[in-house]
Amino acid sequence: MQIFGNLLIGHQVVRGTNGSTRAVNAATGTPMEPAFGGASQGDLNEACALAWAAFDTYRETTLVARAEFLETIAANILEIGDALIERCVSESGLPRARIEGERGRTVGQLRMFADVVRQGDFIGARIDPAMPERKPMPRVDLRLRNLALGPVAVFGASNFPLAFSVAGGDTASALAAGCPVVVKAHSAHPGTSELVGLAVQKAVKECGMPEGTFSLLFGSGREIGQGLVKDHRIKAVGFTGSRGAGTDLISIAAARKEPIPVYAEMSSINPVLLFPTALKNRAEAIGKAFVQSLVLGAGQFCTNPGLILAVDGPDLDRFIAAASAALEETPASTMLTPGIHKAYEAAVAEAAAHAEIRTLARGGSPTASNQGRAALFSTTADAFRKHTELQEEIFGASSLVVRCVDLSMMLDLLESLEGQLTSALYIDEPDYPQARRFLPTLERRTGRILVNGFGTGVEVGHAMVHGGPYPSTADGRSTSVGSLAINRFLRPVSYQDLPEALLPAALKADNPLGINRLMDGKLALAE
Amino acid sequence: MQIFGNLLIGHQVVRGTNGSTRAVNAATGTPMEPAFGGASQGDLNEACALAWAAFDTYRETTLVARAEFLETIAANILEIGDALIERCVSESGLPRARIEGERGRTVGQLRMFADVVRQGDFIGARIDPAMPERKPMPRVDLRLRNLALGPVAVFGASNFPLAFSVAGGDTASALAAGCPVVVKAHSAHPGTSELVGLAVQKAVKECGMPEGTFSLLFGSGREIGQGLVKDHRIKAVGFTGSRGAGTDLISIAAARKEPIPVYAEMSSINPVLLFPTALKNRAEAIGKAFVQSLVLGAGQFCTNPGLILAVDGPDLDRFIAAASAALEETPASTMLTPGIHKAYEAAVAEAAAHAEIRTLARGGSPTASNQGRAALFSTTADAFRKHTELQEEIFGASSLVVRCVDLSMMLDLLESLEGQLTSALYIDEPDYPQARRFLPTLERRTGRILVNGFGTGVEVGHAMVHGGPYPSTADGRSTSVGSLAINRFLRPVSYQDLPEALLPAALKADNPLGINRLMDGKLALAE
Repeated sequence: MQIFGNLLIGHQVVRGTNGSTRAVNAATGTPMEPAFGGASQGDLNEACALAWAAFDTYRETTLVARAEFLETIAANILEIGDALIERCVSESGLPRARIEGERGRTVGQLRMFADVVRQGDFIGARIDPAMPERKPMPRVDLRLRNLALGPVAVFGASNFPLAFSVAGGDTASALAAGCPVVVKAHSAHPGTSELVGLAVQKAVKECGMPEGTFSLLFGSGREIGQGLVKDHRIKAVGFTGSRGAGTDLISIAAARKEPIPVYAEMSSINPVLLFPTALKNRAEAIGKAFVQSLVLGAGQFCTNPGLILAVDGPDLDRFIAAASAALEETPASTMLTPGIHKAYEAAVAEAAAHAEIRTLARGGSPTASNQGRAALFSTTADAFRKHTELQEEIFGASSLVVRCVDLSMMLDLLESLEGQLTSALYIDEPDYPQARRFLPTLERRTGRILVNGFGTGVEVGHAMVHGGPYPSTADGRSTSVGSLAINRFLRPVSYQDLPEALLPAALKADNPLGINRLMDGKLALAE
Repeated sequence: MQIFGNLLIGHQVVRGTNGSTRAVNAATGTPMEPAFGGASQGDLNEACALAWAAFDTYRETTLVARAEFLETIAANILEIGDALIERCVSESGLPRARIEGERGRTVGQLRMFADVVRQGDFIGARIDPAMPERKPMPRVDLRLRNLALGPVAVFGASNFPLAFSVAGGDTASALAAGCPVVVKAHSAHPGTSELVGLAVQKAVKECGMPEGTFSLLFGSGREIGQGLVKDHRIKAVGFTGSRGAGTDLISIAAARKEPIPVYAEMSSINPVLLFPTALKNRAEAIGKAFVQSLVLGAGQFCTNPGLILAVDGPDLDRFIAAASAALEETPASTMLTPGIHKAYEAAVAEAAAHAEIRTLARGGSPTASNQGRAALFSTTADAFRKHTELQEEIFGASSLVVRCVDLSMMLDLLESLEGQLTSALYIDEPDYPQARRFLPTLERRTGRILVNGFGTGVEVGHAMVHGGPYPSTADGRSTSVGSLAINRFLRPVSYQDLPEALLPAALKADNPLGINRLMDGKLALAE
C-alpha cells in the first residue's frame, strides 16, 4: 500500500496545498518520502461540513451495521500488513515488537467497541410507562436513550501512533457512539496516519456509511488543530499530548459560542509508593522491575513511573542501588521525534542542575542521534514540597525518588500532588493496614490504583479507567481506554408521550433492537 | 418551628455577621422577620473545611445508612408541617397548592434517591478477573467503581424554593452520590431555606453522618456564591438561575487551578411547534392549553413555553384568537421577587416596543404590587431570524408566536435556535411524516421532546432528562431531575490487582453489597 501524502476528506483523496512536511526517520534523523500537503481552512471546512451532513444518518445506523463497520476498519488495518509496521517503526523509532503489539491492541479495541455496540447497553434505554389513572395527576409516558454528541475532533498522539491516533481509542469510541470523526494527524507519524486513514476511508465506502463519517487532515496544531476545536460543527474533542497544548484547546472550546467538552489527557507522574515490608522483602526485585517499566518505550508513556515515594533508610538504599545498577545497564533509546528528545534532555539537565536534586544514575550514552539517556534522581520530601516544579512531568525515562521521614510524610506528600492517571503501591501483607490509610487519598487523586505493578501496560477491558483528576486529564469523570470510553460521546435525550410510530427503535414497545432496558426503574433483560 | 436567621455550619447554628437581609413578602412587599445574618469568608471556610473533612467518611457510608439518611431528611421536612408551607407561600408568592405539591415532589425526590442508593447500580461496579495464563501477556485483575466527586456547592433557585433549593434535586443527588453539600441559600426565600436546612442538619445528627455532610450559608452571590465555586475543596457545582450568573460561575470554575464541573441550568425558551393537521383540528383547544401552561406559576418555569412556531394562515389565527382570549382573562399574578417582577416588566416593555413585534394580547392588569401581567406577541420568521435578541428568554408569562411561511421555514428556524430544555410538538396522525423530519433537529437541540403537551410539569422518574445543550444547561451530558442525576457527581476509579483485604465492599469477591455487577463485560445480577 503506497503513501501519497494526501488528505482524506470524506470519500475524496485531496492534495493539501497549505505548506508541506515530511516524516523524519526517528532513528536516523533522515527525512522520509513522500511530502505531506497541509490542509487549508477550506479543507477543514469541507471535512467539518461533511461530518455534519453525515451525523444524523450515521448516528441512526443500526447497531449491527455500525459494529460491522468497526470490524471492517480492524480488518482493513490488518490487511495493510507489514507496510504499516515498517512505516510506523521508522516514523516512531519504537521497536517492531511494540508496534506489532500496538496494532493488536488497536484492532482489539475496534472489535471490543463492535461488541459494545451490538450489545446496546450504551444506549441506556429507559422507559417509565404512562399511568393515566395516577392521582392527583396522571403520569406521562417517558422514554430515554443516549444519543451521540455530534462530530468529534480527534488528535493523534505522538507516543501511540496506532492505538491513540487515527483509528485509536478516541476514534473507535466516538464512532461506536455514533459520532463522525475528523482526525488531525500527528506530525510525528504522517505516513502511518495516511495508511490507517485509508483503511478507515475504505471501510466507510465498503460499509455504505455516509461520506463524512471520517476525514483525516494534516497540518499545524495551531491552524488546523485549533481550527477544528473552534468549528461550530465539532461537538467534542479527544486529545492526548502536552499540558500546554491541552489547556489551549480547553480554553478555545470554552470560549466558543457553544462550549464543548474536551477530553484531554495531559500529564501525570504516576507516583509509586514503596511500603516498608515490601521494601524490606523485595527492594532489589522492585528496583529492577521499576527500571524495566521506566525505560519501556524510552519512557514515553503517560503512565510512566516518574515519582517514587518511600521512607528513607537502608532498604530504600538497596532499592536505589538495584535500580541504579539496572538503569546504568540500560542503553540509550531512540525517542519519538527530535523535538521530544530535545525537550527531554533539557528537562533532565535542568533537574540535574537543581540545587535540591541528586543524580543517582544515568543510562548508557547515546550511540546515535535522537537517543534519550535514562535518568534517576533523588530529593528530600521537604525539597519536593517546597519546589512544586519538581512535580512536573518529564516526558521520557526519568524518575525522581523522594526520601520521606516516615509514612505520614509520604501521605502528606501524596495529598499535595496534582491529579494522576495511576498510582502504584508496593506492599506485602504486613503493609496492608498502612496501605488502607492511603487509599482514600489515592482514590481522590488517581484514576487507577495498582498494587505490586506499574501503570505502564493499560489493559483494554471493561473495568479499565485511563483517566484521572485534573491535570492528568481535563475531565476526571471519564476514561479514554476501555469500553466505558463510549460514554464520553453520549448525552441522554428524553421522549414524552411520543406515538409509537415516531419513537426511535431503541424505545419502541416490542424492543426491536433486543437490548436491555430499564422499565420503571427495573432492569428488563433482552430476551 | 421557629426561624432565627442563622447560618447552619455542620452541627452548629451560627449568627452571620456579614451584613443582614430580610425576606420580603412577595404579595405585599413587606419585609418579614427575622433578619438573616450573612456569612463571612470565615464561615464559608469553616463550611468547606467541614465538608472536606466529612468527605472520605461520608462517601463510604453504607448504602443502607445513606438511604436512611435521605429518608430521614424527607421525614424531617414533612415534620415541619404547615409552618414550612406558610413561610414558603409568603416568601414566594406562589399558591399554597403549588407549594404543597412542590413539597411532595421534594420529599419524593429524596425517597427516590434513597431507592437508587439502596439498589446500587449507580456504583457501576465492573470486574475483569485476572487471566494468569493468557498469552502473550497475563491479564491483570481489574475492578472499577464510581466514586463521589467531592463536596458540592448547591445554589438555591428562586423559582423552586423547595424542589430546587436547600434539599432539592441537586442536594438530593449529590448526597446520594456520596458528596457533602454546602448550600448557598437564595435570597428570595431565606426562611424556607433555614427551615429545610434545619431538617437536613437534624437528619445528619440523627443518622450519625459526619458533621460536615451539610452546611447552609446566607450571603451575596458575588461574595459567598462565587467564593464557594473558587474554594479548592469544592469539586462540583449545581446551579439554576440566570444566564449571566451561570456563565460567571462557569468562568470562575474553569479558571481554578483545578477546574471543576458546573451544572448550570441557565435559559430556555422551549419552542412549541404546531403542525398543520393538529392546528386545523384543535386550534382553540391547543390555544387554551398553551395559555394554561404559559401562566402557570406566573410563567416562572425554566420549561415555560416562550416560543410558538407555526405555519401562517387561518388555523394559526384561530389559535391566536383562542390564546389571546384566554390570556386576556388571566389575572395578573404575584411574581417571586420585586427584582424578578421588574426585570419581567422591562423585558415585556422592550418586546412590545420592538419594531418587528406585534402585541397580540396582555393579561389582566395588576391589582397589587409585584404582579406580572401575561403577554403574547407575534413576529415573522424573517424578523425572528434577523433579530437574535428575540431568542432571549423572558422569565415570566410571556411568549412569542412566529409566523412561518411553511414547514421548511419552521425547520430552518428550529435549526437556528440555541440549545433548549424542552421542545413540544402538537401533531395529529397525518402530521407524523412531517414531524419525523423534525426529530433529528429536535434531538440535537433539546433535552426532552414532548408530543401534545407542554414542558411545564417535570416528572421525577428514571427516564426524565431535565437538561439540554448549551445554553439551556452548561453541560448537556446530564440531567438535574430524575434518577440519572446521580451520575453528575460520580467518577470512575479502577483498582488493579488489589488484595481482597483492601478492595472496597462493592468490588469484593462475594459481593457483600448485593449489587448488580458487570463481570468480564457480562451483567451479573444481584442474588
